[in-house]
Amino acid sequence: MKYTVITGASSGIGYETALAFASKGKNLILTARREEKLKKLKEEIHKINDEVNVEIHLADLSINHEVYDLYESLKEYSIETWINNAGFGNFDSVGDQNLKKIESMLRLNNEALTILSTLYVRDYSDVEGAQLINVSSGGGYTVVADAVTYCATKFFVSAFTEGLAQELQSKGAQLKAKVLAPAATETEFAERSLDVESFSYNESVPQYHTAKEMADFMMDLYDSDQVVGIVDGQSYEFNLRRPIYPYADRSRNSDS
Amino acid sequence: MKYTVITGASSGIGYETALAFASKGKNLILTARREEKLKKLKEEIHKINDEVNVEIHLADLSINHEVYDLYESLKEYSIETWINNAGFGNFDSVGDQNLKKIESMLRLNNEALTILSTLYVRDYSDVEGAQLINVSSGGGYTVVADAVTYCATKFFVSAFTEGLAQELQSKGAQLKAKVLAPAATETEFAERSLDVESFSYNESVPQYHTAKEMADFMMDLYDSDQVVGIVDGQSYEFNLRRPIYPYADRSRNSDS
Repeated sequence: MKYTVITGASSGIGYETALAFASKGKNLILTARREEKLKKLKEEIHKINDEVNVEIHLADLSINHEVYDLYESLKEYSIETWINNAGFGNFDSVGDQNLKKIESMLRLNNEALTILSTLYVRDYSDVEGAQLINVSSGGGYTVVADAVTYCATKFFVSAFTEGLAQELQSKGAQLKAKVLAPAATETEFAERSLDVESFSYNESVPQYHTAKEMADFMMDLYDSDQVVGIVDGQSYEFNLRRPIYPYADRSRNSDS
Repeated sequence: MKYTVITGASSGIGYETALAFASKGKNLILTARREEKLKKLKEEIHKINDEVNVEIHLADLSINHEVYDLYESLKEYSIETWINNAGFGNFDSVGDQNLKKIESMLRLNNEALTILSTLYVRDYSDVEGAQLINVSSGGGYTVVADAVTYCATKFFVSAFTEGLAQELQSKGAQLKAKVLAPAATETEFAERSLDVESFSYNESVPQYHTAKEMADFMMDLYDSDQVVGIVDGQSYEFNLRRPIYPYADRSRNSDS
C-alpha cells in the first residue's frame, strides 16, 4: 500500500492538498505539530473518501531530532509522494526581526526540508512514479522588501529543488523533484508572519488565491512533467515551467 | 579606534583579506576556530604594518551560541566593517551527501551569517561609512551539479544580502551591505568540500583565482558604491554590479 506524505498538513495549502490527494484515492501520512487539527482533517478526509488510510504523525520540524525521528517512523511505509509543505514566513526589516523566530524559520524552511529531501532521495531515487514536491514561494524568485530573510529561505528552496530535479534527471533516476511557488494565498501564513491574531486577506491584499486554489495548482504540478509550478506575481496566473535558475553540469571540483 | 571584523580569517580569502585591510592601516578583529593560524596571521600582519591593532577571537560559527557569544564579546569595539567570510562547501550528489556536514554548512553559511548581519545592522545602520560584506559565490547565482545544497546556501546569501542592501538604501541608512561572489579560488575550500587531504587547483581546475587576487577584488568592492562584486564564470573577470535578483518594494503583507 502506497502513501503520500504531507508536512504542515494542519492548515492552509497542506490541509487542502491532503483533501485533494484523498479525492484521488491516495492514502495519506499527515504531519504537523497540532494533533487536534490533524484529527479534524482526518475526519474531513473520511467524509470525502472513507476508503483511504490516513496516518497522523506529530512533529515539530524546526527541531532537528524530530526531523530524523519523523523519517525513521515512516521507514515501514511505501511513500510514493513526499510533499515538504511545512514552512512559515516573517515580515520585518532585517534590523527589526526576532532572531529566535528567524532561527526557527531557517531550521524549518531549509534545514528540515534538506534533510527530508535527502533521506527521501536516498530511499526512493529508483522507485517508478516517486515524486518529491517542495513548497517554495514567489519570494524564492523575487526578493520582497521587509521579507528579505524569508525570501532568502525560499531562494534556498527553489535553487535546491531545481538543482536536485536536474541532478536526478541527469542520473536517469525515476524520482522526480518539483517546486511549487505560490504567491499570496489565504492561509494562516499572514498571521504567523506578522505575529497577529487575525488577518483579513480580503481587506488587505489586492490579489490572492485561496488555499483550495493552490491545492488545485499543486495537483496540476503533480500531474505534469514540468519541474516548476509558479504563480505569476502580476497576473496571478499559474504556470508550469522548466527550471528557472541557471544550472551548470560541469565536472566536479571546479567551483567555489 | 575603529576595527574591521573578518570571520573565517585563518585561511584563504579571509586570510588574504586581513592582509589587504592591514595594508590600508585598518585595525582588525580576526575570528576562526584555529588559534595557531590566527596567531601566525597576526605575525604576518605586523610584518606588513606594525601599527595596526589585531585582536583574535576564537569561535566555531556553526554552533549557534558561539555566534551570539562572538558578537557579544565585540560590543565594546567600534566596528566600521564586518565581513562574513566564514563558510564551506560540499561536493556530492544530494543522495550521497553527509547530512551532519550539510547541517553544519547550513548553520555556518546561512544561520550564523543571518544572525551576525542582523546584529550588525541593528547597531550600525546609522553609522557613516559602515559596511557589511557577505561572501557568497558564483554558485549563489548558478546552481552547480553535485554541489546543489552548497549552491542553495549561497543563493540564500546572495538574496539575503542584495535584499538587505536595498532595504537599507530605501530607509536612507548609512550602512551599506554588499555581496562578493567568487568563482573557483585557490584555498582550502576544495579540500573541505571534497573531504580530501590535499587538492591541486593547478592540476584539476581549468581556471581559478588565487586567494590574494580575490582579496584584491574584495577591496575593489569595499571601495565601490556597487552592491555586488562577482567573478564571471566564463571569462573569470571581476565585475562590480547593481543587485542581480528582482526586488519588489511593495506594501507589507501581500506576499506569501
